[in-house]
Amino acid sequence: MDPFLQAAIAEAEAGLAEGGIPIGSVLVYQNRIIGRGHNRRVQHGSAILHGEMDALENAGRLPAQVYRDSVLYTTLSPCAMCSGAILLYGIPRVVIGENQTFVGEEKLLQQRGVELEIVQDQSCIDLMQNFIAARPELWNEDIGV
Amino acid sequence: MDPFLQAAIAEAEAGLAEGGIPIGSVLVYQNRIIGRGHNRRVQHGSAILHGEMDALENAGRLPAQVYRDSVLYTTLSPCAMCSGAILLYGIPRVVIGENQTFVGEEKLLQQRGVELEIVQDQSCIDLMQNFIAARPELWNEDIGV
Repeated sequence: MDPFLQAAIAEAEAGLAEGGIPIGSVLVYQNRIIGRGHNRRVQHGSAILHGEMDALENAGRLPAQVYRDSVLYTTLSPCAMCSGAILLYGIPRVVIGENQTFVGEEKLLQQRGVELEIVQDQSCIDLMQNFIAARPELWNEDIGV
Repeated sequence: MDPFLQAAIAEAEAGLAEGGIPIGSVLVYQNRIIGRGHNRRVQHGSAILHGEMDALENAGRLPAQVYRDSVLYTTLSPCAMCSGAILLYGIPRVVIGENQTFVGEEKLLQQRGVELEIVQDQSCIDLMQNFIAARPELWNEDIGV
């Protein structure tokens, strides 16, 4: 498997082990991970730290040119907030572990020229489907439902 | 002036006094401020704490129904990330201090049914225009340019 998707899955698993929602993400620049993160809703009582947002936050302040040469990996199709962050920073490519559980703003991203790759990885699907079966109210809260 | 826009401006001014980018926001539910925030790029080295995001974060974890009955006030037209957060949580109405300096994703928000009110407040305009004249590189970084 792509080692960067594997790193995003490791983040999702770390979140699950902390009692959180198992979604992870990494930001990759010049073939190197420059930011890692996972959903922190439960852990930090956060309304904004989705996995992708946490990876962007942990990457720190970056020049525009770095984002424009980066790839964002995420275990799950990015929601409107995370898609908006991708658009804000002009990240040109997103690798998505799965979109079987949830389809985020993929159409909007594509309309704006972001290249998407959907891996449909079974371990990403299992992580989310097991979590949603166990904690449906947390998942709904995370997507504003 | 609307006291909630005034509170968002007070947040922007607090950010400026801290050496930050002067954009502030409040989340209002049932005529009461439940979250206040301002841009923390400089103060926290943050890539994601725009004023609106900070207000949402400071409001904490909320049931979907609260967002759907809330109004977000912001001193400046919301960027793609903050607009995405508004869409994620289904916030139905956004009051925007000004969009003369910067026009965010207003069209997308309106297409998705979010009601926008543009106040075009001179103090909001002055805060941003003075800041951009003084620190153009910080402003560009904040919008991924």
